[in-house]
Amino acid sequence: MQVIGLVRKSFRAMSALFCKTGNIFDMYRTHTCGELRIADVGKTVTLAGWVQKSRKLGGMTFIDLRDRYGITQLTVDAVADTALVETASSLGREYVIQAVGTVVERQSKNPKMPTGDIEISLSSLNILNKAQTPPFTIEDESDGGEELRARYRYLDLRRNPLKKALELRHRIAHEVRNYLDGQGFLEIETPYLIKSTPEGARDFVVPSRMNPGQFYALPQSPQTFKQLLMVAGYDRYFQIVRCFRDEDLRADRQPEFTQIDCEMSFVERDDVLDVFEGMMRTLFKNVLDVEIPNPIPRMSWFDAMDYYGSDKPDIRFGMKIHEITDMVKGHGFSVFDSVDYVGAICAEGLASYTRKQLDELTEWVKRPQVGAKGLVYIKVNEDGSIKSSVDKFYSHDDLKAIAEKMEAGPGDLILVLCGSRRKTQTMLGVLRIEMGNRLGYRDPHDFAPLWVVDFPLLEWDDETSRFYAMHHPFTAPKPEHLDLFYSDRKEDLEKVCANAYDFVLNGTELGGGSIRIHNAKVQQRMFEVLGFSEEDAQYKFGFIINAFKFGAPPHGGLAFGFDRVCALFGGQETIRDYIAFPKNNQGRDVMIDSPSYIDQSQMDELFLASTAKKE
Amino acid sequence: MQVIGLVRKSFRAMSALFCKTGNIFDMYRTHTCGELRIADVGKTVTLAGWVQKSRKLGGMTFIDLRDRYGITQLTVDAVADTALVETASSLGREYVIQAVGTVVERQSKNPKMPTGDIEISLSSLNILNKAQTPPFTIEDESDGGEELRARYRYLDLRRNPLKKALELRHRIAHEVRNYLDGQGFLEIETPYLIKSTPEGARDFVVPSRMNPGQFYALPQSPQTFKQLLMVAGYDRYFQIVRCFRDEDLRADRQPEFTQIDCEMSFVERDDVLDVFEGMMRTLFKNVLDVEIPNPIPRMSWFDAMDYYGSDKPDIRFGMKIHEITDMVKGHGFSVFDSVDYVGAICAEGLASYTRKQLDELTEWVKRPQVGAKGLVYIKVNEDGSIKSSVDKFYSHDDLKAIAEKMEAGPGDLILVLCGSRRKTQTMLGVLRIEMGNRLGYRDPHDFAPLWVVDFPLLEWDDETSRFYAMHHPFTAPKPEHLDLFYSDRKEDLEKVCANAYDFVLNGTELGGGSIRIHNAKVQQRMFEVLGFSEEDAQYKFGFIINAFKFGAPPHGGLAFGFDRVCALFGGQETIRDYIAFPKNNQGRDVMIDSPSYIDQSQMDELFLASTAKKE
Repeated sequence: MQVIGLVRKSFRAMSALFCKTGNIFDMYRTHTCGELRIADVGKTVTLAGWVQKSRKLGGMTFIDLRDRYGITQLTVDAVADTALVETASSLGREYVIQAVGTVVERQSKNPKMPTGDIEISLSSLNILNKAQTPPFTIEDESDGGEELRARYRYLDLRRNPLKKALELRHRIAHEVRNYLDGQGFLEIETPYLIKSTPEGARDFVVPSRMNPGQFYALPQSPQTFKQLLMVAGYDRYFQIVRCFRDEDLRADRQPEFTQIDCEMSFVERDDVLDVFEGMMRTLFKNVLDVEIPNPIPRMSWFDAMDYYGSDKPDIRFGMKIHEITDMVKGHGFSVFDSVDYVGAICAEGLASYTRKQLDELTEWVKRPQVGAKGLVYIKVNEDGSIKSSVDKFYSHDDLKAIAEKMEAGPGDLILVLCGSRRKTQTMLGVLRIEMGNRLGYRDPHDFAPLWVVDFPLLEWDDETSRFYAMHHPFTAPKPEHLDLFYSDRKEDLEKVCANAYDFVLNGTELGGGSIRIHNAKVQQRMFEVLGFSEEDAQYKFGFIINAFKFGAPPHGGLAFGFDRVCALFGGQETIRDYIAFPKNNQGRDVMIDSPSYIDQSQMDELFLASTAKKE
Repeated sequence: MQVIGLVRKSFRAMSALFCKTGNIFDMYRTHTCGELRIADVGKTVTLAGWVQKSRKLGGMTFIDLRDRYGITQLTVDAVADTALVETASSLGREYVIQAVGTVVERQSKNPKMPTGDIEISLSSLNILNKAQTPPFTIEDESDGGEELRARYRYLDLRRNPLKKALELRHRIAHEVRNYLDGQGFLEIETPYLIKSTPEGARDFVVPSRMNPGQFYALPQSPQTFKQLLMVAGYDRYFQIVRCFRDEDLRADRQPEFTQIDCEMSFVERDDVLDVFEGMMRTLFKNVLDVEIPNPIPRMSWFDAMDYYGSDKPDIRFGMKIHEITDMVKGHGFSVFDSVDYVGAICAEGLASYTRKQLDELTEWVKRPQVGAKGLVYIKVNEDGSIKSSVDKFYSHDDLKAIAEKMEAGPGDLILVLCGSRRKTQTMLGVLRIEMGNRLGYRDPHDFAPLWVVDFPLLEWDDETSRFYAMHHPFTAPKPEHLDLFYSDRKEDLEKVCANAYDFVLNGTELGGGSIRIHNAKVQQRMFEVLGFSEEDAQYKFGFIINAFKFGAPPHGGLAFGFDRVCALFGGQETIRDYIAFPKNNQGRDVMIDSPSYIDQSQMDELFLASTAKKE
């Protein structure tokens, strides 16, 4: 409702503009179907739109007429002109009509509809286009299955939830642009036909007819180009831009997606965080009328892992992870004695869980998606007594001490997992989210933004016995860790933090970025640490390395996943409704039936032969 | 200067914002290089940027420091700290530096520079990055050739003309979005991975790994999707969107280009023209501070051809084409007697053209690009005498009558071409533009917008003996020509006008569109006239025809070529400088060296083999 309100406001501004110049809105209508109110009673109006429904009642015909802006009730009196009555009777669902009539006050008002105080008593009715009966109902809750609605996306898009989603998307994009423009950013379009790169995820490629045998690639992000723009002196760049990744699609991933992509020069980390914290604050305020914390909290990656078991903590609720390794070791419980780490969370008020519920929860954590070997619980009963699945190894006092450490009170349930440190924390993190859901802590209209900072720069891989860049090889180490970065000791290098940051909202990573390396020596050291020879580095990144030799300024930036920003602002978990024409999990657009086979002549022109077996 | 001014204004708003919250601009600087004025004298400031040039004069070192916002002069005194003097002496062109100092009043001011009243007397200087000497000078007029500058585009982009071009582009896009948002339009992103269509120009295609042997296509325009959005009820859609066409590139065409794409429902032609006339008026006013005529003149396609020999007349000047067929036939001059059409233009003040100049002009019109067989001239001399290349066939009175019809006065030169009607008019149109250039009538900072309307709907092709759609088969006929449209006579059908319109500026078509057919019967008649069988129509356009069966509203729209809008606003003819990273005439990005060969493994994954010979 909030959003619609905002959209309507700008639309009203427009209407006012039209009135001033004496124009009516459109040739086909004087008003929209969301506009008329009790104050308009007596006016002669023309509306146009789709027939939502039509019914006869005591000789009257009632028609709900729908357009982008709302629904208005039209009435045709039984004693009206015969042709009019006949036309009104002939209307089917989704017919496109134009209706002229007088605004009258309704006898039985509908307070749920903005136009519910009035109806239009028709004097004429014009069918602009007939419609086949749609294969599913055009209602907030449609009766159509997902596949069917995808096939007729243009009909599904008539439904309110999708309309609101796309209006929200427009509004957010517009606010982003206004904010960044006001901050001196230039939106600069970078090319879509670029070059395939040997690193990273798979590129989509585009055969070039004019350059036989050669291919363009579609960008996975404008990373190279935005860094070149910094070299070129465009110190505040942004772009709302499509990106492409030919990955096997996980649920809720799209082969093409939209990014708010930004880069700044002559900045340090806090400049970047300030600007984009301001952007997020403005979006929440202007789009949702929500105030977010000022400043947005910051958490190191290490704390996020230790206390939330996730690099994207949902901080709408506490239920922090506590390490209790020292408290539980050496009591003869071999499971705990044999592991590095024991950690626990406290689910408030769930001591009432029955044996059956606890067994079910144990099975839940043992599923491969979580991967725990088992679950230990400690119930703090309402009467202060403590009951645990490991009673025989721990005294009441032992358990009480744990409960105290966990700040568990009467009625709370402590859940304990163990194993290797990070892996167990991650499992606890997943369990925490599950318990948060069960306890109703995760209201999608609550918003808890967070910056996660101080990521490790490097990840050691035992198998290949080398370091990998946790982000990408241009991410700068934190300035205060430069000494460690030049150390030869693995332990030192593992401690080096990246000058990187993620924007997290409600447990979802919405964006991330880093200060980039602009200094040739630091870059060289980075390649050395990653075990790249100079030839490797030149082959993989030569173009950008060479560009940097002509005067690269200090710079950094970030990118937000725009589809996901929209979904979260709309209080939804999946992005599909926030994209007008999305693809399914096989990367297909089932509406237009794409991808598809192309003519042999087209293949020949591109100097291509297919080695695939035709189905 | 105008544009920079506007950009700076919004930037200043930002600076003010920062001041309010007590923040400085960036960690690396307190001010930009375009900002400091005489009122700032005495302030201690930190600037960062690139060394434009550095020179020694009487013991002092003068450094011009450049960033996106301007150039500020830095000075280092010979008696300063030795390290500082040494650092200042070591600076090369395009070094990236950070400089701290005090703003002082200049002794010799430079009125050409906004910062020309002051200079910064440095107390410290920090080299942020050294730079190799760039392969060409970073000046408004560079010494680098086009190819070299393209290869180092990121350096070329440092030059002022390109920076202004991209700033202008940003500003125009932003104004377009503000205007359309204010008019109730929603920007809705349509997919880039779509389906190859059997009609029209060549598509770029994208092999699908997940669907072996199948291809996506990149959109030539979002035409289908925007019409589906109208079916879906999004009655005011727009998008600033990339489009792709795999055409053999004419000069100044790009394989990827940007369109301002729009569509509206429940509208007739004048609704569309009103909205986009308003958009153009707003752009001219807000971006260039130029008032364009209100209303923008409208001209029928027939008048455009008859009087300007072009469907995109440059109306910055008159020099209209006059038909003189009847006046010149029957005087024994066989060339004129044997043709359908004789037309002429009057070039003011050029009666002084010498024999040599007239011969040169005759050769010019005979070049294949124009294609005339010859040129007849009539000079009206200053003394009132008339001299012509066809004197022997025409009396003084005959020629005088022509001169009067042409409104030619003393000193004017009449140029006459003949042949078939439309072809000759087109040649006269080309000649008119040439003479306009020679006479200085085509100032790129004069703006003469024009709507061209009432195009023929159909074009007859003698070879295939059938009609073709002049725009596309969904373009509606004008309502008042519907009767003609159902006639079986070729002459009637040739008279049917399309409900279409082009926006023309200074002789360039910047945009165009039409009211679309939404009525199934009219669409069927269109296919009939074009000679499509029902199967043909279903094969080629089945998807959209079927979508229209579910309730298509009356709708229409248009699209502007955004790259060209930017170029014309910038007073330039070529679009290349208005695109950050353009491709050359072979469709190559010579900076990143794309397209390029890809790995065999990548080809294998895509089930593709190349039949091209590797170079």
